[in-house]
Amino acid sequence: MSNKPFNQPLSGNEMPRCGGIATMMRLPMQVNGEGLDVAFVGIPFDIGTSNRPGSRLGPRQIRDESRMLRPYNVNTFAAPFESLQVADIGDVPINTFNLLKSIDIIESFYQENILRYDCKPITLGGDHTIVLPILRAITKKYGPVAVVHIDAHADVNDEMFGEKIAHGTPFRRAVEEGLLLNDKVFQIGLRGTGYSADEFKWSIDQGFTVIPADQCWYQSLAPVMAKIRAKIGDSPLYLSFDIDGIDPAYAPGTGTVEIAGLTVPQSLEIIRGLKGCQLVGADLVEVSPPYDPFGSTAVLAANLAFEMLCVFPGVKYDEL
Amino acid sequence: MSNKPFNQPLSGNEMPRCGGIATMMRLPMQVNGEGLDVAFVGIPFDIGTSNRPGSRLGPRQIRDESRMLRPYNVNTFAAPFESLQVADIGDVPINTFNLLKSIDIIESFYQENILRYDCKPITLGGDHTIVLPILRAITKKYGPVAVVHIDAHADVNDEMFGEKIAHGTPFRRAVEEGLLLNDKVFQIGLRGTGYSADEFKWSIDQGFTVIPADQCWYQSLAPVMAKIRAKIGDSPLYLSFDIDGIDPAYAPGTGTVEIAGLTVPQSLEIIRGLKGCQLVGADLVEVSPPYDPFGSTAVLAANLAFEMLCVFPGVKYDEL
Amino acid sequence: MSNKPFNQPLSGNEMPRCGGIATMMRLPMQVNGEGLDVAFVGIPFDIGTSNRPGSRLGPRQIRDESRMLRPYNVNTFAAPFESLQVADIGDVPINTFNLLKSIDIIESFYQENILRYDCKPITLGGDHTIVLPILRAITKKYGPVAVVHIDAHADVNDEMFGEKIAHGTPFRRAVEEGLLLNDKVFQIGLRGTGYSADEFKWSIDQGFTVIPADQCWYQSLAPVMAKIRAKIGDSPLYLSFDIDGIDPAYAPGTGTVEIAGLTVPQSLEIIRGLKGCQLVGADLVEVSPPYDPFGSTAVLAANLAFEMLCVFPGVKYDEL
Amino acid sequence: MSNKPFNQPLSGNEMPRCGGIATMMRLPMQVNGEGLDVAFVGIPFDIGTSNRPGSRLGPRQIRDESRMLRPYNVNTFAAPFESLQVADIGDVPINTFNLLKSIDIIESFYQENILRYDCKPITLGGDHTIVLPILRAITKKYGPVAVVHIDAHADVNDEMFGEKIAHGTPFRRAVEEGLLLNDKVFQIGLRGTGYSADEFKWSIDQGFTVIPADQCWYQSLAPVMAKIRAKIGDSPLYLSFDIDGIDPAYAPGTGTVEIAGLTVPQSLEIIRGLKGCQLVGADLVEVSPPYDPFGSTAVLAANLAFEMLCVFPGVKYDEL
Amino acid sequence: MSNKPFNQPLSGNEMPRCGGIATMMRLPMQVNGEGLDVAFVGIPFDIGTSNRPGSRLGPRQIRDESRMLRPYNVNTFAAPFESLQVADIGDVPINTFNLLKSIDIIESFYQENILRYDCKPITLGGDHTIVLPILRAITKKYGPVAVVHIDAHADVNDEMFGEKIAHGTPFRRAVEEGLLLNDKVFQIGLRGTGYSADEFKWSIDQGFTVIPADQCWYQSLAPVMAKIRAKIGDSPLYLSFDIDGIDPAYAPGTGTVEIAGLTVPQSLEIIRGLKGCQLVGADLVEVSPPYDPFGSTAVLAANLAFEMLCVFPGVKYDEL
Amino acid sequence: MSNKPFNQPLSGNEMPRCGGIATMMRLPMQVNGEGLDVAFVGIPFDIGTSNRPGSRLGPRQIRDESRMLRPYNVNTFAAPFESLQVADIGDVPINTFNLLKSIDIIESFYQENILRYDCKPITLGGDHTIVLPILRAITKKYGPVAVVHIDAHADVNDEMFGEKIAHGTPFRRAVEEGLLLNDKVFQIGLRGTGYSADEFKWSIDQGFTVIPADQCWYQSLAPVMAKIRAKIGDSPLYLSFDIDGIDPAYAPGTGTVEIAGLTVPQSLEIIRGLKGCQLVGADLVEVSPPYDPFGSTAVLAANLAFEMLCVFPGVKYDEL
Repeated sequence: MSNKPFNQPLSGNEMPRCGGIATMMRLPMQVNGEGLDVAFVGIPFDIGTSNRPGSRLGPRQIRDESRMLRPYNVNTFAAPFESLQVADIGDVPINTFNLLKSIDIIESFYQENILRYDCKPITLGGDHTIVLPILRAITKKYGPVAVVHIDAHADVNDEMFGEKIAHGTPFRRAVEEGLLLNDKVFQIGLRGTGYSADEFKWSIDQGFTVIPADQCWYQSLAPVMAKIRAKIGDSPLYLSFDIDGIDPAYAPGTGTVEIAGLTVPQSLEIIRGLKGCQLVGADLVEVSPPYDPFGSTAVLAANLAFEMLCVFPGVKYDEL
Repeated sequence: MSNKPFNQPLSGNEMPRCGGIATMMRLPMQVNGEGLDVAFVGIPFDIGTSNRPGSRLGPRQIRDESRMLRPYNVNTFAAPFESLQVADIGDVPINTFNLLKSIDIIESFYQENILRYDCKPITLGGDHTIVLPILRAITKKYGPVAVVHIDAHADVNDEMFGEKIAHGTPFRRAVEEGLLLNDKVFQIGLRGTGYSADEFKWSIDQGFTVIPADQCWYQSLAPVMAKIRAKIGDSPLYLSFDIDGIDPAYAPGTGTVEIAGLTVPQSLEIIRGLKGCQLVGADLVEVSPPYDPFGSTAVLAANLAFEMLCVFPGVKYDEL
Repeated sequence: MSNKPFNQPLSGNEMPRCGGIATMMRLPMQVNGEGLDVAFVGIPFDIGTSNRPGSRLGPRQIRDESRMLRPYNVNTFAAPFESLQVADIGDVPINTFNLLKSIDIIESFYQENILRYDCKPITLGGDHTIVLPILRAITKKYGPVAVVHIDAHADVNDEMFGEKIAHGTPFRRAVEEGLLLNDKVFQIGLRGTGYSADEFKWSIDQGFTVIPADQCWYQSLAPVMAKIRAKIGDSPLYLSFDIDGIDPAYAPGTGTVEIAGLTVPQSLEIIRGLKGCQLVGADLVEVSPPYDPFGSTAVLAANLAFEMLCVFPGVKYDEL
Repeated sequence: MSNKPFNQPLSGNEMPRCGGIATMMRLPMQVNGEGLDVAFVGIPFDIGTSNRPGSRLGPRQIRDESRMLRPYNVNTFAAPFESLQVADIGDVPINTFNLLKSIDIIESFYQENILRYDCKPITLGGDHTIVLPILRAITKKYGPVAVVHIDAHADVNDEMFGEKIAHGTPFRRAVEEGLLLNDKVFQIGLRGTGYSADEFKWSIDQGFTVIPADQCWYQSLAPVMAKIRAKIGDSPLYLSFDIDGIDPAYAPGTGTVEIAGLTVPQSLEIIRGLKGCQLVGADLVEVSPPYDPFGSTAVLAANLAFEMLCVFPGVKYDEL
Repeated sequence: MSNKPFNQPLSGNEMPRCGGIATMMRLPMQVNGEGLDVAFVGIPFDIGTSNRPGSRLGPRQIRDESRMLRPYNVNTFAAPFESLQVADIGDVPINTFNLLKSIDIIESFYQENILRYDCKPITLGGDHTIVLPILRAITKKYGPVAVVHIDAHADVNDEMFGEKIAHGTPFRRAVEEGLLLNDKVFQIGLRGTGYSADEFKWSIDQGFTVIPADQCWYQSLAPVMAKIRAKIGDSPLYLSFDIDGIDPAYAPGTGTVEIAGLTVPQSLEIIRGLKGCQLVGADLVEVSPPYDPFGSTAVLAANLAFEMLCVFPGVKYDEL
Repeated sequence: MSNKPFNQPLSGNEMPRCGGIATMMRLPMQVNGEGLDVAFVGIPFDIGTSNRPGSRLGPRQIRDESRMLRPYNVNTFAAPFESLQVADIGDVPINTFNLLKSIDIIESFYQENILRYDCKPITLGGDHTIVLPILRAITKKYGPVAVVHIDAHADVNDEMFGEKIAHGTPFRRAVEEGLLLNDKVFQIGLRGTGYSADEFKWSIDQGFTVIPADQCWYQSLAPVMAKIRAKIGDSPLYLSFDIDGIDPAYAPGTGTVEIAGLTVPQSLEIIRGLKGCQLVGADLVEVSPPYDPFGSTAVLAANLAFEMLCVFPGVKYDEL
């Protein structure tokens, strides 16, 4: 049994991996961010989604499939549980019948239960609509933020079916509300089909850097991440990771599938490439368990969430 | 090729069962109810659901799995396509991000695209929220209606998460709005768990007849249906069939599963027991394809929808 | 290791149930019926099927899922391996691109590899087309036979898509070719939809006894089987069991699904009800593994095939 | 928010059903049975299983799928959370590589973490091997117990593959160790295949009452339960429920499947029939999630575990 | 609603993506190619397949999963619906019991219902046997054609099980019948196991260019496509894409799986590399839905079919 | 029928691919290695696994899915059945309830049934624990061996849950027992999370060469294999391939999933890179069928096992 002062994931030598209550990484739970450096928090919300639903069940499945994660990152030497206090603070009690009320519930929850304690959230979604209220809350504390946004879709539609808030519009709203440092917004992995030739034009017009998926094929993203990191500098950074940015061969369990996406090694390079940035929050969204009953996508998501934790400021690195 | 004056399902001798465009029973399509006696119509709506989503995809899967249905009912001798004009009129274009707007879209669609043509709808859901706008539209034409309601749940909650309209509240709203002939409302198959001892009390207090599932175990429902039919008499009747009224062994693909439900033979006895009633509309709701990828539940739903068609007024019976 | 003179299924105490080569019941293999009383034989054929394919893989999955079967029937006291020599003789090498050639291959195989050795076949299908060549071979040896035929469909179509031989026509062809003792043919479990009012008329006109599924609901079939057994008397009997005769809740893995079918207890009563008859062969057809990846239907089929074995003439019954 | 003194399941009006940490019924957790009347406890153990593994994951999936359960039983009027203190106390930390050590770990855990607090366990398995150490612990407190044992298999083998302890032997060991009131042991649902004619003889010779599945077909078990209840009288009673006692149409997710089992209504009648007995513990075992990825079996198991809770001594019944 | 003169896919702002009748890309339907530049057409045929069946259901699933496709290609800037008239003309009514008759039905259908209207087909298969009658029809109009053939297998066997026509023989027959410009035939992605050392020899001897999969690993295919495009020049070109050319990680739903295949980016490079060629027809074959119940392979196939449309002559490109 | 002197896989022109008894590659069976150069042998063992079980069913599923394999390797020109005698010798009868006894059973089986006949084993697992007794047996014959070990995990833990033998410890035990030529041990594909910073230190301290997965991303492994081959020289070589070394996009059916693994082309390069070595045995472990019901992982495993066969000493290569 560990005698460290920081919370530790329940070890496989104390309880079989298949056992124990399904918290994120089998960490201790608490009801809010008090005393924490980083909190894992779920948002069981999917009514902003346009095609396949199911991401409301994402937090439960990601937690379940996080059970194999041990505390140390053997590839990057990160040992997050040796220098940060981390816990699972459960789910935001959204209103599953009313999108707009849920948006307000999320914003309040982040302000009152997480950010007021100087705790940084790693959010397990839920569909991508939720990034809007999270950014609203975060910018109230930190001011406008740089964003690294991995996704198949730019999510900058003006409306969907006449609605201003849905999973395809959050970054348009965020710009309009002044939540972003537009010249420090990076959209990586965009691809697929759209409604017109100016699909990426709006993003570019705002000053975003757009890196379509086909510019990433067959190569390491380490060089591009070095440039991105340099551009971000010391600005507060938010990381928003839509699992559909990754190719469906790796991540079939999602709602709006696009072929020919990023690979998992590229995804790791993106996250690991943010080491040293002033990360103030991160999310992993659009995991839809009904479309992946054996949890391949959730295993991936759990690992990505752990890799996010490994690049938060203050993490100790234990190279030999 | 058939030379009958009525639309016919595409025969398996004209096109293999596995082929053809996936309309309901491979019937011809048209855009509204003009000239039709009965229309199959889909509502790809599931944002009123509280647990597992997915019934938004119900209409597509039910249509696909209806491909084995031939035009004649070998057990009841009904030959609906010999005396009724029937088509598939596609889906209601609901707003998948906004429950209340969708409720209004549905009501308008039924009034303007179906009922104004004296066409009777068989609705493929979608979650059970949709029965409220359907009843609103139908009662504008027919006045208050008798209802046979098969379900695991009474769906008479006052609110869900503070909302007045969701898939657990439609029959409460319907009573409040005077849409029902309360003493001719029959709720069959209720069971499971609830919040308090008066779970069925509200229904009974309104004059509904409640037949819990455990009163149905091990026996034919033909006798009870004879009594129900007598009580309904010539009143306009609406049939609302939540697939979760049936035991999950037969119907696993649904969102709020309750064990120990009705059997499929009992379900057929209920529908067939309505022969002779003044049926003015029917629905089959809560089929959730993501939870039943091989379509067992959709095959069942397609058959039940066909059996509903077989008891509409005017259907010819071809006994030998 | 057993020292009995008869082949024995490999015991779970000699090899874990999950191990060993996947023969039927983990019995020894041989290449033909020489020296055997009864042979299990597979026909990996599904090109006579009209809707969902896949039954070509039925024999492999049934064999795999037969691994839990122990040698003694605890409910009927049958101990078939104490008095009969039984083996798995593998599959018939059908031509998967040509239906008519396959029909001839099957007939020859049964004559030359099974019946010439006075061995009786229990066939693992494959789609129902295969019963025609089997009956052709069997009647060459035994003359016309009584048939107990469990199925959702009568399989007495004159043609399908213009073809005389397909999985919906074998019993019509069998009558035309004089293979059946028509007044000793029993079709149990029929139901669903058809093309016209005379769906069952042809069967009845031939003298068949038709027992639709809805006449079986809620009750034991033991009484009806007593009558059937009496009618069959000492005639040579062939048992043909289409798995879709059983309700899809029990047997989802099949190609032409019909709701409201027989229960498994009823199926056992039918098979067990044939004890004492002069059974000369049996089949279990239409198991389609792709539609049942965890093998529920194959487990059922393996058990039914074992129960068939238990009622062949000569089986010893070991009541306490 | 409830102001009752007893723990309550988290309401669907406080957190969507799809959200929240996956404890049993979304109840509060604690680390042992202190202050509890009844505890839900998991045993993630499956190395005593002979065919398909996977029940080690049973506790996690049953907890997840228990999320729809509300606190009141609408069919029996039981309101267990109005008079009993109940919590989820997590899992027993078994050794997944060593069966015999795990047996000892389980026995100690029950003695020290549950029974010493006068708390009664409802165990979520895990394979059936675990009933042996549970009975050892329970009888140390209560003396020999009456047992109602629902199962497809008698589990009274002397050995499996030469081993004395495995999932097919616990009740033989229990008799040998004097843990049972043999004349008050009832085995319900037995069926399938076995190794010899004396499959049930050993049970009967010990004084057990054996009720094979085929004696249950087509009928209510209420009458037989009245007799059983009378025989048990005031003896301390343990209820052991192997999910494979139920037909695989209802419970496909298990390891040693046998066809033609009990129905779910019969299962409810058995459990509900124990109301009034001196129940001192209960288990629900052999749920194997990998074979049922959408959790149909786990939903059933969660409901059965709740129904067990409803018949523990002291539960308040709130009839209208 | 669009007021463009060309058919448009039904927009997600007019009907939720999960709704509407499942035509390809939710395009309008018509019964033949009259007035069309390009037609999507299905062939629900799989009786030429040698291992796993199921591609008969390919057209239905590809249509269903095409629902996310929007009209504009954000990576290539193609806007096919701004300059071409396109519709879904349904399925070819093949005879599912008779391979040779089906071959003739297909050829006639293409001549009479598609090619006579100067319409170019994009075929949704079905197994690869169908390319033979398609090529027969197409060469009657255009003379011998160049072929780009993506596949794991060369499909140039002389016979399969003694049959001259099956899914492993079409390109041998096509050569024998003089349908191909042999020196402009390119087979990409070949790999796996075969019967002898001269597996690719026959192809090479005919003048085909063979590019085995292992020569494609880890690299862009853009350079090789430039060479291929140059060789093809202005010859009429047919594109035949067997989904098993792609690695099973991306395309598990197929019948004769071979490991270590092409990636999806490579597949897009191949199709996009044909821009500027005189494409006269294309197919996408061997998608087998039963082996991919969540439709990952069908989503990929739908996207590939759209990408094929984007390189037909006359497509407008809308670069910013 | 082949008239070659060596056993041949049953041809698809003799029996459809979907038919025949499921031996490895549809090869003949025999009970031990007598007269064989190489034997395929299964070990249905998974009680050494720490997370998801199921690999006990690996041998059965790999055999089933090996049915598409033809005798000739079209990419490497290997024709193993032209120069080696190969058969399937079935499974090792392990004790599924007792890990330590099973370890001894395996060692004895390999000595007595395989190695004494100078036969070399290709083992189909089963979890990775089994490599320990295999190495014990092999080194008794050949002395310490070089090892190429593909895996996500180093499997050099000292203990798991206090146990010295489990699927995470075999290579530590092997070193302690002197079974390895430590400076000729190559661990390829390691990655993921661990318990501390010295995760790979122990391996390196023993003289192993560790090649983590992230050093392999985006590139061919042919160069590194040339170096490895040079280092191994003429030492006897054992190849141990844990399927989780490969990325879960290709191999989802396994128990302890780690993201960002090797690709299948890299895996083939590793195996093919061993051509010319003195290979004395090989295994393919950790395929867990319950987590991959359509057998994608087993298809891959069957192909890898065939590729292993192709690099055994003495295989004839038939280049054109």
